[in-house]
Amino acid sequence: MVRFSFCLLLCLAVLPMLPPVPGAAAAGGSNAPEYTADGSLVFPANYREWIYLTTGMDMDYNPELANMDHSMFDNIFVNPEAYKAFVATGTWPDKTILVLEGRMAQNKGSINQKGHFQTTDIMARSIHIKDTAHFPGGWAFVGFGDSNTGRTFPKQAVCYSCHEQHAAVDTTFVQFYPTLLEIATKKGTLSPSYVKEEAANAKK
Amino acid sequence: MVRFSFCLLLCLAVLPMLPPVPGAAAAGGSNAPEYTADGSLVFPANYREWIYLTTGMDMDYNPELANMDHSMFDNIFVNPEAYKAFVATGTWPDKTILVLEGRMAQNKGSINQKGHFQTTDIMARSIHIKDTAHFPGGWAFVGFGDSNTGRTFPKQAVCYSCHEQHAAVDTTFVQFYPTLLEIATKKGTLSPSYVKEEAANAKK
Repeated sequence: MVRFSFCLLLCLAVLPMLPPVPGAAAAGGSNAPEYTADGSLVFPANYREWIYLTTGMDMDYNPELANMDHSMFDNIFVNPEAYKAFVATGTWPDKTILVLEGRMAQNKGSINQKGHFQTTDIMARSIHIKDTAHFPGGWAFVGFGDSNTGRTFPKQAVCYSCHEQHAAVDTTFVQFYPTLLEIATKKGTLSPSYVKEEAANAKK
Repeated sequence: MVRFSFCLLLCLAVLPMLPPVPGAAAAGGSNAPEYTADGSLVFPANYREWIYLTTGMDMDYNPELANMDHSMFDNIFVNPEAYKAFVATGTWPDKTILVLEGRMAQNKGSINQKGHFQTTDIMARSIHIKDTAHFPGGWAFVGFGDSNTGRTFPKQAVCYSCHEQHAAVDTTFVQFYPTLLEIATKKGTLSPSYVKEEAANAKK
């Protein structure tokens, strides 16, 4: 179960049949991270109105793990302020918030006969955030169950080392965000380790 | 080949190995439809910064048609002005522009071993637009090949009758847009024919 979460452990945040998040109707205002009094990250209510980056389906970084008994889409969103900075610079500014939303996939329904579409069942929610004032080292992975306040994964979690080793830009999997991959490639901000890994993959 | 285009004929707009659209960096300004001097719709350059509605993969409305030799994601975006009106009312205002972007799906790549992710290869672009001043009846389907100006499908095209018969809201397939389906359900704006069809499907 190593689906297209930001990291392996974030699968702990997968919610079987979680009721859907209500339609996010908030508009305007700041998209800076918010924390509770005890320092827990608050899940952004209006993330569906942020910038969309990509969707994967049933992605898995480990071929030997068992299949799940259903299919899932993973949608990625980022706060507009961070997106604009990435378009300008090819990398992420402080206060970047990447949201992963996992949705149950359905095969047959309405007039659809083949393939898959997304349903109202949200199965996972997690965040990869860069906030130097709040997290030592800047970046942190935060899981959300059915709560709107998150649980930060410790630095020893494998998500940090995996992203450090394999991410295309600044510990983020920009290799799976097609419009941003093009920008980073043009601006020369791809990480040396990623470029080396891709060169090795190309020889296989 | 009746993938998750807005209609059957829009498959004509599928582009084998079309070079990717450059990253849309435009910001601000109006998202009202633009037309050339001869009345052709201009493809909106900044649609990736609009509101994301959903993604399907390999969707097909006809089970008897042959499979394609690759997998494709279909991402749907809408202009923010229309989205805000839908959130408020449960239906679409004039000047609504729904963009379908088809992207080539890739299985193995980088560290991904299973499932699919989206690539930089855009394979299809089409638009479903409501503009009463420009199109008789309000709604029109417009296909784009490798051009940024569109070709409007005639009213006799099967897309119009299919959407008229099966769409959840105002000839649009809101049944596949999970956040909007919840809003339309709450606001009671689902079309009677869709509600009847779903009731019949539930009995099967």
